[in-house]
Amino acid sequence: MEGGIGEVDHLAGERATALFDVDRMKVAWAGSRHAVDVADRMARLVASDPVFRKDNRTMLPRTELFKDTLKKAAHAWKRIVELRLTEEEANLLRLYVDQPGYVDLHWGMFVPAIKGQGTEEQQKKWLPLGLQGLETTATFDPKTDEFVIHSPTLTSSKWWPGGLGKASTHAVVYARLITEGKDYGIHGFIVQLRSLEDHNPLPGVTLGDIGGKFGSGAYNSMDNGVLRFDHVRIPRDQMLMRLSQVTKEGKYVHSDVPKQLLYGTMVYVRQAIVADASKALSRAVCIAVRFVGEWLKWLYTDVTHKLEAKDFSTLQEAHACTAGLKAVTTSVTSDAIEECRKLCGGHGYLNSSGLPELFAVYVPACTYEGDNVVLLLQVARFLMKTVSQLASGKQPVGTTAYMGNIQYLLQCTCGVTTAEDWLNPAAIKEVFEARALRMAVNCAQNISKAPSQEEGFYELSPDLLEVAAAHIQMIIVTKFIEKLEQDIPGEGVKAQLRNLCNVYALHLLHKHLGDFLATGCITAKQGALANQQLGMLYALVRPNAVALVDAFNYTDHYLGSGLGRYDGDVYPALYEEAWKDPLNRTVVPDGYHDLPPPAAQAAAQPLVQALIDFLL
Amino acid sequence: MEGGIGEVDHLAGERATALFDVDRMKVAWAGSRHAVDVADRMARLVASDPVFRKDNRTMLPRTELFKDTLKKAAHAWKRIVELRLTEEEANLLRLYVDQPGYVDLHWGMFVPAIKGQGTEEQQKKWLPLGLQGLETTATFDPKTDEFVIHSPTLTSSKWWPGGLGKASTHAVVYARLITEGKDYGIHGFIVQLRSLEDHNPLPGVTLGDIGGKFGSGAYNSMDNGVLRFDHVRIPRDQMLMRLSQVTKEGKYVHSDVPKQLLYGTMVYVRQAIVADASKALSRAVCIAVRFVGEWLKWLYTDVTHKLEAKDFSTLQEAHACTAGLKAVTTSVTSDAIEECRKLCGGHGYLNSSGLPELFAVYVPACTYEGDNVVLLLQVARFLMKTVSQLASGKQPVGTTAYMGNIQYLLQCTCGVTTAEDWLNPAAIKEVFEARALRMAVNCAQNISKAPSQEEGFYELSPDLLEVAAAHIQMIIVTKFIEKLEQDIPGEGVKAQLRNLCNVYALHLLHKHLGDFLATGCITAKQGALANQQLGMLYALVRPNAVALVDAFNYTDHYLGSGLGRYDGDVYPALYEEAWKDPLNRTVVPDGYHDLPPPAAQAAAQPLVQALIDFLL
Repeated sequence: MEGGIGEVDHLAGERATALFDVDRMKVAWAGSRHAVDVADRMARLVASDPVFRKDNRTMLPRTELFKDTLKKAAHAWKRIVELRLTEEEANLLRLYVDQPGYVDLHWGMFVPAIKGQGTEEQQKKWLPLGLQGLETTATFDPKTDEFVIHSPTLTSSKWWPGGLGKASTHAVVYARLITEGKDYGIHGFIVQLRSLEDHNPLPGVTLGDIGGKFGSGAYNSMDNGVLRFDHVRIPRDQMLMRLSQVTKEGKYVHSDVPKQLLYGTMVYVRQAIVADASKALSRAVCIAVRFVGEWLKWLYTDVTHKLEAKDFSTLQEAHACTAGLKAVTTSVTSDAIEECRKLCGGHGYLNSSGLPELFAVYVPACTYEGDNVVLLLQVARFLMKTVSQLASGKQPVGTTAYMGNIQYLLQCTCGVTTAEDWLNPAAIKEVFEARALRMAVNCAQNISKAPSQEEGFYELSPDLLEVAAAHIQMIIVTKFIEKLEQDIPGEGVKAQLRNLCNVYALHLLHKHLGDFLATGCITAKQGALANQQLGMLYALVRPNAVALVDAFNYTDHYLGSGLGRYDGDVYPALYEEAWKDPLNRTVVPDGYHDLPPPAAQAAAQPLVQALIDFLL
Repeated sequence: MEGGIGEVDHLAGERATALFDVDRMKVAWAGSRHAVDVADRMARLVASDPVFRKDNRTMLPRTELFKDTLKKAAHAWKRIVELRLTEEEANLLRLYVDQPGYVDLHWGMFVPAIKGQGTEEQQKKWLPLGLQGLETTATFDPKTDEFVIHSPTLTSSKWWPGGLGKASTHAVVYARLITEGKDYGIHGFIVQLRSLEDHNPLPGVTLGDIGGKFGSGAYNSMDNGVLRFDHVRIPRDQMLMRLSQVTKEGKYVHSDVPKQLLYGTMVYVRQAIVADASKALSRAVCIAVRFVGEWLKWLYTDVTHKLEAKDFSTLQEAHACTAGLKAVTTSVTSDAIEECRKLCGGHGYLNSSGLPELFAVYVPACTYEGDNVVLLLQVARFLMKTVSQLASGKQPVGTTAYMGNIQYLLQCTCGVTTAEDWLNPAAIKEVFEARALRMAVNCAQNISKAPSQEEGFYELSPDLLEVAAAHIQMIIVTKFIEKLEQDIPGEGVKAQLRNLCNVYALHLLHKHLGDFLATGCITAKQGALANQQLGMLYALVRPNAVALVDAFNYTDHYLGSGLGRYDGDVYPALYEEAWKDPLNRTVVPDGYHDLPPPAAQAAAQPLVQALIDFLL
């Protein structure tokens, strides 16, 4: 769907080659003609409204971004009322406004169908997570017919709920119910957090935003919050009493609703997430497809030809080696940084973990100094050339010298018969060499079947990338093994490095098992033994993990991470960082009192918000 | 290395289990005792200096961040002079300041060893990239003994060079040399860009920052720039004349230095990038290891036990199915968004491409509503239970119903003999079912060999993750195939969807070839045929790619991307976006004139900067 109608269509040629009816495909994606039409209408409504502009979003300081979120929420509400939009239309309008915010929950209260099931919905969302370690208590006081809500420690603070930091006025708080001196486990309570008059937190309630998150714009428009209670009193009837009740006298009574029912419906939330995935992915694909196709082809052939023209044989090997190592190490590194970030759970998404910035500052290395895909294709071309010259007796040099051993490597069989045999460096080295060479030879044969060499290179690009990666992995594994042949002083130091080397090699072997099996370098049984050995090596590395990273010798300043602190004292660090966020400079956020009447009215409604002790 | 010395060490227990000498390991990582010591000294120097604080970096608006970069550059220079640091020490100090900026290049001019080879170094860096399509010309005018530098079109603007946007005063510009009416191809010219008095761009020079980039903080401290020339005149002797000269009369003369020599040394830059990778990766690992270990174990066992306790059989299947689908779809989506971003080359790193924000706003889906790793382990536990109940004749339900077919699936052989046979949906479905079931059965057998079931689950976690993924992939492939059995109207629509379904299934088969081969579901030959068919399918999809993404029906507003525009008119959009950046509001950046004397003096030195027409 075109947005601004320009005079050019650089993609017209691409569109002309399509072999199908695009309009009917839209129906197929969306599910029905109606779905296409209503989405279309809402998308255009949002796109044409200047209040919903988002091109400046990543440039706004966080306080301004939040103000912008408030303004958009108010305006969206105004449009929904003015145009008498249906629930379906209103939901789509929110989708296309495309800015996460407290209003995602807020509006839920004003759309009738959601309103009816609000509390149950939120239980579905939050119950499955973090059910243990909950330290907040709700102690019944029969003298005043009230519960006393209290978070005794820093780690009992609520952390993460969206909309809590600056916007929510009420919350459903999960706490351990204590009555007649007995702990009855976790129950929900509706607690008012802020004044409906001046929006200030009520006495005993500590509230704030948890700080900036991954990216510019992105989820920074959401005020994920931190909350702590100091003996806050609420009336008895604010306990959620569908499953069990507390009487005026303090007696705990079960209802006959089966508890498990509450769990079943989380299925719904997960299903919604699965559906959303396709939206985010299709957006990215849409951007990449419209930009990349022709450009990448040009870039690749051009750069390759330029470099191929210079045929200095050792220089070429050095080029292929460094280009390939650059591509493999930068890709592996950026993927692994992101893997580490995700392993840190929700907290890895906070800027104060240091990981979002580390990823963002590192990842351009995959592109600069030669795009990794282009570089690997160059390496593969060099390998194809090297293979083709083997027949004429030309001896390969440097890191391709192993290819000279072609007769042996094409027919050798791996001698491993026990898991322990996989600790033999010579066995590892040989299978990595055999795999790399056999893949290169197979690929060269397939290219020779194509009508022309250029067509062969183009069609077999995906295979060529794998050939190059196999070669580079062989280099890294071999160099690691060679390093371990040297003397490395210090008690246990060499043993640890040997474990890491074996973990690395066997991890690669398992990850690319298909390569090793398909080329007949190892048998399925040997593959299973390698994986078994890998499991044993993990168990050896685990007790040394913290000490191994200590040996990187990084200061806390350099790591710049609340999670990676030397002393492991994570929570006070995160807590302290959160309060530094500019959004926490004022209690009532800038722009809150400027909301126009209809939205202001909406905002004054109790914003019921489900909370849990996330991870704590 | 501890940063702030606290009273606690939550990781002391972890450190006590290490089986090696951490101090000697530091030496092993760093290469020598000297390297550890000097790094240690510089790291502490930076960490203890309040000017180098970086905890607030992600919270700063971009203009403030840039000002902070200027301040740090000046302070670092001051410290280097005051302490008479060696080149090695100064380089380490810069590393630990840990903030990319124009100064990375700037300082290069003042460190003697780099100073000597400056220009050649920069040629190494830029020459291999984007050598074609260069539209900027340097036309010799013998009347005035000058070259006239001119960028005739928008697409001939220089784009990306670091330090160019706001800081550089001089540049090495690559342009097509024209003399005596003939085009001699690409040569380098030293061009002054800004006044050394007031730092304003010289007449005919258009200069600006290209706008915000991926992440908060991160590379936003660097002023990557855009540059365009309108008939700017430079003296003849500012052409780089090592390889060839232009005489006063306009004659073009070659020197006898072989041109290829310039290419060889780019090897050096790549090697430096490979070395840097380990630093970024080890930082991330350091953070993750110190945080994750114990927490993840607790989270997993706790959540699993809570959920296992409720044994509602169909509910459990639905839980396993949605949990698994949530994990697989969100992981695949976030990885693929990032893949799309990288495919867009350098431009995918700009916020104006829309992709950094899309990634950052989507990726928490991998963590929220159940961490994906934890969810997959739950799915695997459910599958293990289902397998164990098969023996007792219990019929599996829903998406696990295929497991009831165990006798057949354990012994069936794939009948594919040609590449075309892989287009048969029944063949695809069967191998995915057989693979999932055989992996589950193998894993269950391995668990039964462990001393206890719990230990088995713990040790075999990596295998369990693969079992769960194989099962979920089978569900997705099967559902896609079932969908295609329905009527889908529109010319060519169903054919396209069938191609995509086959691409998806065969791509998975190739990616996880090891699983299929190791379990004997297919032979190596059949795997090769599948890959061959996949190549043919790619060729079928390619001409439909742009039309397929058009069918997602996204407005340009919703995509929010200069690269993904419907009309493909990418460059004017990027150009326009760049000028909106707050850093471009002033010509001379805020803070530039506040630099203290030594750094100001340094800043006034010509900042030689190599440029290319990146991608253009």
